[in-house]
Amino acid sequence: MTRTETNRSRSSNSNSENSRDGGGGTTGMRIIVPLQGVVQGRGGLFLGSVIPCAFFYFFQFYLKRNRKNESDNSGEQNSSASTPNSVSNSGFPDPTRSQSAGHLTELTGLPRSLSRILLSPRHSGGAVSVSGRVNSVIKGGDSPYYVGQKRVEEDPYDELGNPDGVIQLGLAQNNKLSLDDWVLENPKEAISDGLSICGIASYEPSDGLMELKMVVAGFMTEATKNSVSFDPSQLVLTSGASSAIEILSFCLADSGNAFLVPTPCSPGYDRDVKWRTGVDIIHVPCRSADNFNISMVVLDRAFYQAKKRGVRIRGIIISNPSNPMGSLLSRENLYALLDFARERNIHIISNEIFAGSVHHEEDGEFVSMAEIVDTEENIDRERVHIVYDLSKDLSFPGLRSAAIYSFNESVLSASRKLTTLSPVSSPTQHLLISAISKPKFVQRFVNSNRQRLQSTYTLLVKGLKDLGIECTRSNGGFYCWADMRGLMSSYSEKGEIELWNKLLNIGKINVIPGSCCHCIEPGWFRFCFSNLSESDVPVVMNRIRKVCETCKSQN
Amino acid sequence: MTRTETNRSRSSNSNSENSRDGGGGTTGMRIIVPLQGVVQGRGGLFLGSVIPCAFFYFFQFYLKRNRKNESDNSGEQNSSASTPNSVSNSGFPDPTRSQSAGHLTELTGLPRSLSRILLSPRHSGGAVSVSGRVNSVIKGGDSPYYVGQKRVEEDPYDELGNPDGVIQLGLAQNNKLSLDDWVLENPKEAISDGLSICGIASYEPSDGLMELKMVVAGFMTEATKNSVSFDPSQLVLTSGASSAIEILSFCLADSGNAFLVPTPCSPGYDRDVKWRTGVDIIHVPCRSADNFNISMVVLDRAFYQAKKRGVRIRGIIISNPSNPMGSLLSRENLYALLDFARERNIHIISNEIFAGSVHHEEDGEFVSMAEIVDTEENIDRERVHIVYDLSKDLSFPGLRSAAIYSFNESVLSASRKLTTLSPVSSPTQHLLISAISKPKFVQRFVNSNRQRLQSTYTLLVKGLKDLGIECTRSNGGFYCWADMRGLMSSYSEKGEIELWNKLLNIGKINVIPGSCCHCIEPGWFRFCFSNLSESDVPVVMNRIRKVCETCKSQN
Repeated sequence: MTRTETNRSRSSNSNSENSRDGGGGTTGMRIIVPLQGVVQGRGGLFLGSVIPCAFFYFFQFYLKRNRKNESDNSGEQNSSASTPNSVSNSGFPDPTRSQSAGHLTELTGLPRSLSRILLSPRHSGGAVSVSGRVNSVIKGGDSPYYVGQKRVEEDPYDELGNPDGVIQLGLAQNNKLSLDDWVLENPKEAISDGLSICGIASYEPSDGLMELKMVVAGFMTEATKNSVSFDPSQLVLTSGASSAIEILSFCLADSGNAFLVPTPCSPGYDRDVKWRTGVDIIHVPCRSADNFNISMVVLDRAFYQAKKRGVRIRGIIISNPSNPMGSLLSRENLYALLDFARERNIHIISNEIFAGSVHHEEDGEFVSMAEIVDTEENIDRERVHIVYDLSKDLSFPGLRSAAIYSFNESVLSASRKLTTLSPVSSPTQHLLISAISKPKFVQRFVNSNRQRLQSTYTLLVKGLKDLGIECTRSNGGFYCWADMRGLMSSYSEKGEIELWNKLLNIGKINVIPGSCCHCIEPGWFRFCFSNLSESDVPVVMNRIRKVCETCKSQN
Repeated sequence: MTRTETNRSRSSNSNSENSRDGGGGTTGMRIIVPLQGVVQGRGGLFLGSVIPCAFFYFFQFYLKRNRKNESDNSGEQNSSASTPNSVSNSGFPDPTRSQSAGHLTELTGLPRSLSRILLSPRHSGGAVSVSGRVNSVIKGGDSPYYVGQKRVEEDPYDELGNPDGVIQLGLAQNNKLSLDDWVLENPKEAISDGLSICGIASYEPSDGLMELKMVVAGFMTEATKNSVSFDPSQLVLTSGASSAIEILSFCLADSGNAFLVPTPCSPGYDRDVKWRTGVDIIHVPCRSADNFNISMVVLDRAFYQAKKRGVRIRGIIISNPSNPMGSLLSRENLYALLDFARERNIHIISNEIFAGSVHHEEDGEFVSMAEIVDTEENIDRERVHIVYDLSKDLSFPGLRSAAIYSFNESVLSASRKLTTLSPVSSPTQHLLISAISKPKFVQRFVNSNRQRLQSTYTLLVKGLKDLGIECTRSNGGFYCWADMRGLMSSYSEKGEIELWNKLLNIGKINVIPGSCCHCIEPGWFRFCFSNLSESDVPVVMNRIRKVCETCKSQN
């Protein structure tokens, strides 16, 4: 009986949709009409048994295939709802068909009026979902273990100051050991300004002290030229950008889901997104003919091809300033990406680890995704997540400190807990606080960083141009993206690796071949110039010249 | 045709096995004989179609359920092979039956002589396997990206010292920025002894500098009273013990696999083992009647019950000194556990984070699993992995530094790479080096730590005893394990939580109820005493007395 009702509501939904679309719904009718016949008493034995049986079989098949993704399916309902054509455009055993059939079944649990809203092709907002498994992480704090710790935090015992406070017998600290011994033997370690030995001798929040979050938010505001004011409560600190991206991947996607990543992209995503999360990456190629700009048409195609294969896309990862090209995404680009994410009901991870290292602003301003979300009221913020790196802009890679800045409370809550597995240590937290807590110093630091990057970049690009090697226009970050196709013996990935080998072994220069960045056109290379002083540039050029001569003599 | 061959070889395997076992094989025959009939032309339409169809259905069902586990099944073959009885002891739709049928199918791919070895119940050794997915992590370093970085490490360019060295244009460092600015403005930060500003301004190995590994190995040797000499090359440093356990879980088990964990156990395993890896925990209860000792019979039963349910066990996690009981595993215990692991072909993770905090050695010595592996030649070391915590024994939880010590090269190689996702920051590495590089200081530090723990423990246990609360015998770590069953209003988990609530809200003492440690007997509580000074103990006793009085007046 339940099943009949399911069919009934499904057919009426489809009908209303077809009539609203004004035709083109005959394929959908093929399946639905016979079942209506059964319901309304007009069908025979054949229509009443064989077709429902077949339907049930495919339905069961669908359920089995999608069981994992269904643990939290509200997001997918939305995205399938925004493309009603997929309901009626394919044959029955086609996976697209069985997929959309499944979604209609899911909708029957909703009140009629709500399901109608979800089916409207114009409705593109709605709550975006996080991965199903992240819920167990979010809910993981209700046990006495965590409740007790919280009570101690709120009301800690102190012999004199708070003798009625809660005594901590639940946490494995050992901070009563006479630390004076250590300090007496190592007086120089007791850094008086910020990092004292006490600063490393007790547990501190693994997602960052509030004091640190406040100075980090201030630094990010400075790095984005005060165009946006960052809220410290939306920050979660992690031990490096890799771990920030891993945590976001885990929070936003389930195993078997995928992210769209326009290429060329950072070589690190293969590790950060995929290794431990079971999440996949679908590369969306950008081409030199388009100046490696992201094409919304190609993005859209990749999304539907994945969907056809039964892969659920949970988000898109972009870099701004771009890694490896060093280009900046325009305000229009960002709006288009947000529209795309909203229409497909997916997340956006905006990797802004070089936000403070924009070196050629006259060619285009850096716009943080946070600024767009901040200024537009109609944007649903919960799908936007930003990764920020404190090591890059501060030139302290050894600090291994980065931040997630998210507008999604579930993601923030889960991320905070997950930082226990990749925390920023206390000495590092205190060092960071003491390093970036002085606004004047930060301002001067960011400016001198920009100037140095600008001059080295200009020298390097000019030097390469003199050797006949053109770079794409780059305004931010530590990289330039060089077109070395003219030096390849053959236009193939093999030719690229051969050239890379020559650069490494003849020129003795380590650069990153485009294939590592998943660039589909061979012959492009990423040069990281932030390590070079101005006097190093001529040395680099001489070495590349040597490689150029070898290549020319061989070709 | 292929299927018939499969059935044929399967039946012959079963037959040979049954005859070896000397009977008891009739259940297995029930399925196999009709199919033999079909093959040999003696079956009718019924035997030739309905039964094969049913068989095919269940076979398909089995394959679907076990697809994930099959990605790397050599270990499981071994362990299933060592228990031939499970092949013939159950009915057809029983999962045990379908499971063993599956294993026999897997075995058909092997040469007959090899499958015979695997089926021998006496064969217990063999190479232990790591998870299938960890291979992609291990192989992840062959791309030019990593090869180039390695070349730079081996032969780095230096204007004067090595002008022909490889120039780094592949890594996003920014270490040419005039750091002098920072040092001039913050002279106190430039810790001269070990942690200079240069120590945080460049990438350093995320799995630990060799210099740090050497002092850590020295510290571990000291903490284990020189009974074993740790090899720095087998160490991988991680940002805390949680991340060490997560990395090991990921490396040793695939999603859907499980570890056996004797309980009561650390409440942290639910997070570290399960959250991100998709690996499960099967708790193996230890009882107060056995003094909470691990029973090999119960372990064995848990192993086979999991196997019956189709869950593949990849290892066992033990704590020594135990968390929460504080007891030590004897040499005999360790040998028995190693035997169990070898017989079942699984891993052992020995959590020795309190190795340096043994406070009552007169009641039993601490024996590291590393010592057993070091002294016995016939033990296959690759299945042994030790977790060590630098924060605990050094009383610096804020340092968030721990270590994996493994004898398995695959695990070490993958772990080194995975530390990129949870690295120890450079300031922390340098602080650690400077803190523990002086043998004399370390020795004195470890000894004073032991003495302090000993006196606080003695005071606390005596105080509890005076209140009628007995603790189990504890020799190491920061905890004691108190029997508060007498104070519960009802002998149930509810009664335990009620008592915990009273301790927290009336007594204002935060302790951990046994349920958080997955203890199956209600009424046990974990007291962490390392935070207490001697003068705190009477305060704690007064508060517990108050709770005792409330309980007695209510009962």
